[in-house]
Amino acid sequence: MSQLRVLTFDIFGTTVDWYTGVARQVAEILGDLLDAGTFANEWRDRYLPSMARVTGGERDWVYLDTLHRESLDDLLRQHGIDANEATRQRLVQAWHRLPAWEDTVEGLRRLRERHTVAALSNGGFALMTNLVKAANLPFDCILSAELARTYKPDARVYRTAASLLDVEPDEVLMVAAHGWDLAGAAAAGLRTAFVARPREKGPDRAGDRAADVDAEFYATDFLDLAEQLAV
Amino acid sequence: MSQLRVLTFDIFGTTVDWYTGVARQVAEILGDLLDAGTFANEWRDRYLPSMARVTGGERDWVYLDTLHRESLDDLLRQHGIDANEATRQRLVQAWHRLPAWEDTVEGLRRLRERHTVAALSNGGFALMTNLVKAANLPFDCILSAELARTYKPDARVYRTAASLLDVEPDEVLMVAAHGWDLAGAAAAGLRTAFVARPREKGPDRAGDRAADVDAEFYATDFLDLAEQLAV
Repeated sequence: MSQLRVLTFDIFGTTVDWYTGVARQVAEILGDLLDAGTFANEWRDRYLPSMARVTGGERDWVYLDTLHRESLDDLLRQHGIDANEATRQRLVQAWHRLPAWEDTVEGLRRLRERHTVAALSNGGFALMTNLVKAANLPFDCILSAELARTYKPDARVYRTAASLLDVEPDEVLMVAAHGWDLAGAAAAGLRTAFVARPREKGPDRAGDRAADVDAEFYATDFLDLAEQLAV
Repeated sequence: MSQLRVLTFDIFGTTVDWYTGVARQVAEILGDLLDAGTFANEWRDRYLPSMARVTGGERDWVYLDTLHRESLDDLLRQHGIDANEATRQRLVQAWHRLPAWEDTVEGLRRLRERHTVAALSNGGFALMTNLVKAANLPFDCILSAELARTYKPDARVYRTAASLLDVEPDEVLMVAAHGWDLAGAAAAGLRTAFVARPREKGPDRAGDRAADVDAEFYATDFLDLAEQLAV
């Protein structure tokens, strides 16, 4: 088996807690017009379908902020909420500032001692740079699906990442809390690690469960992954 | 005047001391077959001409490592040195590990408090990631001419950087120790800061002098730049 040289990390849900972060900001911005946690989940529910229209060739590549905005407009209409332009822009920016999971920073610090650690998100390069800076995440570099002008799980995203870091796909370990992301990575020739984030969708919905996901490594958090890879 | 949001940094010579780093590694690898400092300068002399063939359309884009290797092969031939493949590969890798100038890390730390700080080098994305990691440079993200598949001073390099960070060109300050780089940045609509690195080419050759360079800011090092921008 080839040597592991690079670890690429999914961000939303795997590295940061989008549910808590988005719900908190929605509550601040929209007040008690709605249940902020439910709204965060409804917004995120539109995430994969909106990207599937790009990866499926139905529409040209657009920035994730644009997809977030379209989903938001649709959702506000459904809820009968009449927010102005500035409010909508602030809401889209909520995805640029999200809190890290408790183990994230220390886990990345340990993992980067032996490997190159890179963010590999469907979030755009600017969004990802803002988010990583605000949460002080010790990544060695930031990669984004934007660099391949498509979205995960399109194989080109994972292969572009390997190519930019000048390594073979099987020298890269994709770390994610989602089965669909790891399936895409495996199809592109990457190795895979599942990190369970059971609270990803808040208290009322379950995150992906290990039993339902195919991966080479299964970890409870980034610290556990660091221990498994240190052997 | 627009607000400054992003600072992009040239790397070789501006942020790290390529002369000392390359000369030291050449001396380690080739011993006393030649004067390592002179060799480092002769190698670097081939840098701009080799890239000009790409930016001028004479040849397709190739990775900087490839250009470094071609220049090296040429130079070894001229010096009548018969190095094997492994030695040549080690020599090319010398450009992946270079020491930061004394003020670099603390300067970047201060500058990143108010701005996004990004590496913007002609070095490839992998080279730059290796170099930044090895020297512990606190950049928020790494950019590379590779992302535009051409080389500075081609305007597309600077504009791709602004576009990936989702800012206007005039919200970006290019920081470099070289007039040609700042001229390219200005032509692409960026703002410019010259940082003097008089010892860039070692003890026997002078670096670019402020008097010969057009820029908006002139700084003696990164700490001086941080003070000027903090006003």
